[in-house]
Amino acid sequence: MNYRMLIYLLSVILLIEAAFLLIPLLVAVIYGEPVLPFVITVGILVAVSLPGVLQKPKNTKIYAKEGFVTVAASWVLMSLFGALPFTLSGVIPNYFDAFFETCSGFSTTGASILKVIEGLPKGVLFWRSFTHWIGGMGVLVFMLAILPQGGHAIYLLRAEVPGPTKGKLVPKLRHTAIILYGIYIAMTAAETISLLIAGLPFYDALVTTFGTAGTGGFSVMNSSIAGYNNAAAEWIVAVFMLMFGINFNIYFFILIGKWRELLRNEEVRVYLSLAVISVAIICIQTYNSFSSFGECIRSSFFQTASIISTSGFSTQDFNAWPGLTKMLLVFLMFTGSCAGSTAGGVKISRLLIVFKNTLREVKHMLHPRSVNTVRIDGDPVSEETVKSAVNYIALYITVLIASALAISVDGFSFETNFTGTLACLNNIGPGLGNVGPSGNYAGFSIFSKIVLSFDMLFGRLELMPLIILFSPSTWRKR
Amino acid sequence: MNYRMLIYLLSVILLIEAAFLLIPLLVAVIYGEPVLPFVITVGILVAVSLPGVLQKPKNTKIYAKEGFVTVAASWVLMSLFGALPFTLSGVIPNYFDAFFETCSGFSTTGASILKVIEGLPKGVLFWRSFTHWIGGMGVLVFMLAILPQGGHAIYLLRAEVPGPTKGKLVPKLRHTAIILYGIYIAMTAAETISLLIAGLPFYDALVTTFGTAGTGGFSVMNSSIAGYNNAAAEWIVAVFMLMFGINFNIYFFILIGKWRELLRNEEVRVYLSLAVISVAIICIQTYNSFSSFGECIRSSFFQTASIISTSGFSTQDFNAWPGLTKMLLVFLMFTGSCAGSTAGGVKISRLLIVFKNTLREVKHMLHPRSVNTVRIDGDPVSEETVKSAVNYIALYITVLIASALAISVDGFSFETNFTGTLACLNNIGPGLGNVGPSGNYAGFSIFSKIVLSFDMLFGRLELMPLIILFSPSTWRKR
Repeated sequence: MNYRMLIYLLSVILLIEAAFLLIPLLVAVIYGEPVLPFVITVGILVAVSLPGVLQKPKNTKIYAKEGFVTVAASWVLMSLFGALPFTLSGVIPNYFDAFFETCSGFSTTGASILKVIEGLPKGVLFWRSFTHWIGGMGVLVFMLAILPQGGHAIYLLRAEVPGPTKGKLVPKLRHTAIILYGIYIAMTAAETISLLIAGLPFYDALVTTFGTAGTGGFSVMNSSIAGYNNAAAEWIVAVFMLMFGINFNIYFFILIGKWRELLRNEEVRVYLSLAVISVAIICIQTYNSFSSFGECIRSSFFQTASIISTSGFSTQDFNAWPGLTKMLLVFLMFTGSCAGSTAGGVKISRLLIVFKNTLREVKHMLHPRSVNTVRIDGDPVSEETVKSAVNYIALYITVLIASALAISVDGFSFETNFTGTLACLNNIGPGLGNVGPSGNYAGFSIFSKIVLSFDMLFGRLELMPLIILFSPSTWRKR
Repeated sequence: MNYRMLIYLLSVILLIEAAFLLIPLLVAVIYGEPVLPFVITVGILVAVSLPGVLQKPKNTKIYAKEGFVTVAASWVLMSLFGALPFTLSGVIPNYFDAFFETCSGFSTTGASILKVIEGLPKGVLFWRSFTHWIGGMGVLVFMLAILPQGGHAIYLLRAEVPGPTKGKLVPKLRHTAIILYGIYIAMTAAETISLLIAGLPFYDALVTTFGTAGTGGFSVMNSSIAGYNNAAAEWIVAVFMLMFGINFNIYFFILIGKWRELLRNEEVRVYLSLAVISVAIICIQTYNSFSSFGECIRSSFFQTASIISTSGFSTQDFNAWPGLTKMLLVFLMFTGSCAGSTAGGVKISRLLIVFKNTLREVKHMLHPRSVNTVRIDGDPVSEETVKSAVNYIALYITVLIASALAISVDGFSFETNFTGTLACLNNIGPGLGNVGPSGNYAGFSIFSKIVLSFDMLFGRLELMPLIILFSPSTWRKR
């Protein structure tokens, strides 16, 4: 383990967090709110990180192990420090609650322990939503974009970008990171402007966009997007949620004129097909509760886009919807969206690989001498990738069951325990039962909140980095 | 595909079913009940099977494909014909309901659509419980025990005996089948005698034993084993449920004096440890609802043994128990018991392999050059077995989610849909919510009942045989 490099990278990340915190600090200044919570947090972050940043190690080489540990540790530390403004401002007095809320933010989950949101300081709420935006594309990707990195920094990108995806878009790693953030910022700007045109105030347009871009789901309204009572805004948010759930590589290919990549991409095809089928079923099931067909379509589309993109915004209390619709939403919570997007979930490409692998196994049983390869987009998938996708599902189920078991000590219903864990692990936010769109996570014990906080980070970082961080053999000397 | 051999084997199976039906027919005679439902069913079975049985093909060679298809088709056919006595006697007028009940019987699930059981004809109830006993060890294993088979009959045994297990106990396949049935019959006799000593009437002792031996769970009392109000009987049933959930190979090794196999066996150790932990937790959680410590222990042990062995007998309505206890029971529903037993579930050995494989993957990520092997009982597990265990989990989750989605059209709660599917797929019987110990499956639509019926067969035969039976490429000419 290259400890010096690990400390250096973590220090850089915390300094970047301090820099990010200057923006909500500015918001607090503009709205004449207390700035001390931000000033103290920035001060602590600078004091903690500066010594490390100033000592850049000579040996900057890192490998897979350091990549995983750096990414996992930086997300935990960012959440630990990022929780301070909530507690220092008195908005969330209990530090563990604040940690939950911050993990929920960075992991783009959007699960909240706040019962009343309207009326809270705008600076603090800005920070809450901004964590979604930071977490969406990833803070290490950001670091790679702004700082030139030597030696094997690809391991950082691999450990932070979700899903089985191709990694580098262009030969230079730094350029890949710049392209990803460039697309991210452009789409963020596009949504903000669209929401302004739809009539939202600038502050609301911005924080709503942060929640959409990171596929997070924190809103500054008590009743989420429904609170704006603005059909145009609902359509805009829904379309952008769906778009942020698509692999960013696709946008890159579109930018360089390779439109055909979009049509060739099986994952995107399945993702959009699932969305269309879901909208149709929900529409049929909930038709009677709406006054017009347009409203029914809008609402079905919004809820589908919100869940499949793992955002978690809501315009309806889908906890009160019919059985099939609820079960369908739980299914979409599980699948999630595309690899290489800002969204959570198991990822459709991974499920596609697992599904095709199963078909292959059946074929192999029938014709033991036949040789079959799993193909995605027509290209063969390596056996290593197939193995890791299948293993991921097994590991994922283990974490899901263990967490649901752990939080069930609080005595809530099976539905609440199961969908709450699923909604945290898959970075969605609302589940069913007590944690449905009209509920929240405040009722859980501190113990359960800590379990769910780590589930959110587990989900965002796709299990392995945190497992490696907490695995004793990582720290054993060889 | 060796069609002639397939037809021959299926005919033999149906003739065996006709023979089995003579026993409930005899029970009906003894109790002076109408015998016509049994006579007609036996007549139909003989008429259908006799032509096939008389034409033994010259080429008796079968391979994996024929093995899977024969096993899957024979279980579906046995359930289709086995449902007739229920409908013909008027006990279950709707044939689809009767099919559900029969699938539940043969698959040793114990999920019932009957609301009132006491007072129904004893012959029909005998058949209902007897299907558990037949399904527990498997009808094809029975056939292998009574008929000498040529050519590759091992494929039949492999396709019917659950879990990743070593297959043949002794070099001769027929002797393996005889040993398995010998142990099965001896244990059945032991439980029946124990229950007689505890004071149960002979009929009740016998049908309760059938339900225990097959780890099924059908009882002739409305309130299951609680109906006997007999503490000794509860202890006996609980201990035997736990015993029937253990790999029968272990009993064989004990018989031939190799006691150490029991202690060496990791699966059994994990199985019994899970049971002990579960009893302790349930005891602590439910302590206040019992009048004495002994009663609390008995009840906790009974429910744990019932669920972990996937039997589904009950002495308490665990649907009304606290959150952690319910979640723990759902977890045990998922794990199930040991491979090579009469029980359902994912099987502990499979989960052990998947878990150790995950540990290995983590190690491999940390030290990419290291070579690690998954070991069970100290012996290396082949990569083929690891792969198939991991794939099984993925396939299992797919079937679970698809089924839960399908039955949610009926509009029941998430808890009912999810645990109902889990309880059928894992051959347990009762779930939570509407299908809890005090509920039943009568409220589902015909469509959902068919889905759940096949889930039960899917679970008993461990997915692959039925998938291959229904896969178009099985029937395509090459």
